[in-house]
Amino acid sequence: MAQLMEDDVFKAFTTYAAIVTLKMILMGPVTVYFRLTRGSFTNEEDVAWKSGEEKKKFLKSHPDVERVRRCHLNDLENIVPFFFIGLLYALSGPELSSALLHFRIFTGARIFHSFAYILVLPQPSRGLSYFLGMLVTFSMAYSLLSKVFFL
Amino acid sequence: MAQLMEDDVFKAFTTYAAIVTLKMILMGPVTVYFRLTRGSFTNEEDVAWKSGEEKKKFLKSHPDVERVRRCHLNDLENIVPFFFIGLLYALSGPELSSALLHFRIFTGARIFHSFAYILVLPQPSRGLSYFLGMLVTFSMAYSLLSKVFFL
Amino acid sequence: MAQLMEDDVFKAFTTYAAIVTLKMILMGPVTVYFRLTRGSFTNEEDVAWKSGEEKKKFLKSHPDVERVRRCHLNDLENIVPFFFIGLLYALSGPELSSALLHFRIFTGARIFHSFAYILVLPQPSRGLSYFLGMLVTFSMAYSLLSKVFFL
Repeated sequence: MAQLMEDDVFKAFTTYAAIVTLKMILMGPVTVYFRLTRGSFTNEEDVAWKSGEEKKKFLKSHPDVERVRRCHLNDLENIVPFFFIGLLYALSGPELSSALLHFRIFTGARIFHSFAYILVLPQPSRGLSYFLGMLVTFSMAYSLLSKVFFL
Repeated sequence: MAQLMEDDVFKAFTTYAAIVTLKMILMGPVTVYFRLTRGSFTNEEDVAWKSGEEKKKFLKSHPDVERVRRCHLNDLENIVPFFFIGLLYALSGPELSSALLHFRIFTGARIFHSFAYILVLPQPSRGLSYFLGMLVTFSMAYSLLSKVFFL
Repeated sequence: MAQLMEDDVFKAFTTYAAIVTLKMILMGPVTVYFRLTRGSFTNEEDVAWKSGEEKKKFLKSHPDVERVRRCHLNDLENIVPFFFIGLLYALSGPELSSALLHFRIFTGARIFHSFAYILVLPQPSRGLSYFLGMLVTFSMAYSLLSKVFFL
C-alpha cells in the first residue's frame, strides 16, 4: 500500500485533489458566513432565539446566500468528476509532466471559478473557467480510456 | 501500482465508472443548452449584455431547465455512492462475472434514467431505473461488507 | 490488489465509508416516503394518474420534503469530501488508532446530524455535528498533506 504513496503521479494527484476538496469544503463555512451577515436562514430552528415578527424576516432567501450555494453545487458537479476520473487516471500510469499539467490547470481553473462566481466578475470569466475545468476532466478521461477499456 | 490496472475487475470498474461519470458531467452542458434555448438564467452577470426590460425576462426559471437540474442532482445522489461503494467492492476481489453484471446493470439503468427524466417518459420508467441503480449499489455494499468488516 | 484489503486501516476506512455512504443513499427513499405521505411532487409525470384539479394540489412543495432534501444535499457536501480525503489518508499509512478515531467520530457525527435535521432537534445540535464532521475531514487532510505533498 505504501507503494502507491511513493509514486510521484499519485503524490501529485493526492496533493491537488486535497487542495480542490478543501476549497470545496470551505464553501460550507462561507455559506454560514453569508447567512449570518445577510440574516437569511432556511430552517426555523436556526432562528428559534428570535421573536415572532423578526423570525419571519430572517427566514427569507438572500441573493448573496443563493449565489454561494450555486457556487458550492457547481463545485460538487465538477470537482467530484475530477476526483473520480483523476484517481483512475493517476492509477493508469500517465507521464508525470502530463499529469501535473492536468492537475494544475484544473486546480487553477476551479479556484478562479469560485472567485469569479462570488465576486460577480463579468462574464465570460466564470464560463471559461468552468469549461476549462471540464476540458481537463475530459482530457484525462480520454487518456484513461485509451489505455484501459474493458466493457 | 500498475498491478491494479492489470486486474480485470478493476479495469471493468474503471471503464464503467468513467462512462457514468462522463454521462453525469454532460448534464452541465445540457443545462447550458437549455438555458440558452429557453432564455432562462439565474446570475445577473450572465445577461449583462441585455437591456433593462429584457434582462428581467431572461432572469426567470424555466421548467425545462429545472428538470435538467433535478436530473443532474439525482445523478450526483446516485452515481457518487456507486463510485464509492463500487471502488471498494472492486478492490475486495469479487468474481469478474458478478462484478460485470453489477457495473453493466447500473450503467444501463442510469443512462435510461436520464432519458426518462429529460424526455418525460411516463412513470414508472424513471422510478424503476432509479431503484434498479440503487439496488445494484446495495448489492455491491452487501457483498463488500460481508468480506471486509472492521469496526 | 488483495493486499490493500489486508491492511487494517484500509479495512476500517472501507467499513466506515460504506456505512456513511449507505446512510447518504437512504436519504433518497426517505425523500420518496415524505413525498408520498405529504402529497408533494415536482414532476408532472409523477402525478399523471391524478385528475386536473388534484394534480395542482400535489405539485406543491412541502416543508418536510424540502427539509429532507436539504439534509441530503448537506450529506453530499460533507460525506463526499470525507471519502476523498479519507481514502487518500488511509493510503498514506496513518496509525490504526488515530484512523479509527477519525472514522468513528465522523460517522457518529453525520448519523446524529441526519436525526437532528429531520427530527428538528433544537440548535446548536445540528450545527455542532456539522462542524465536528468537517473538523475530522480537516484533521485528516492536515495529517495527509504533512506526509504527502507534491506540487
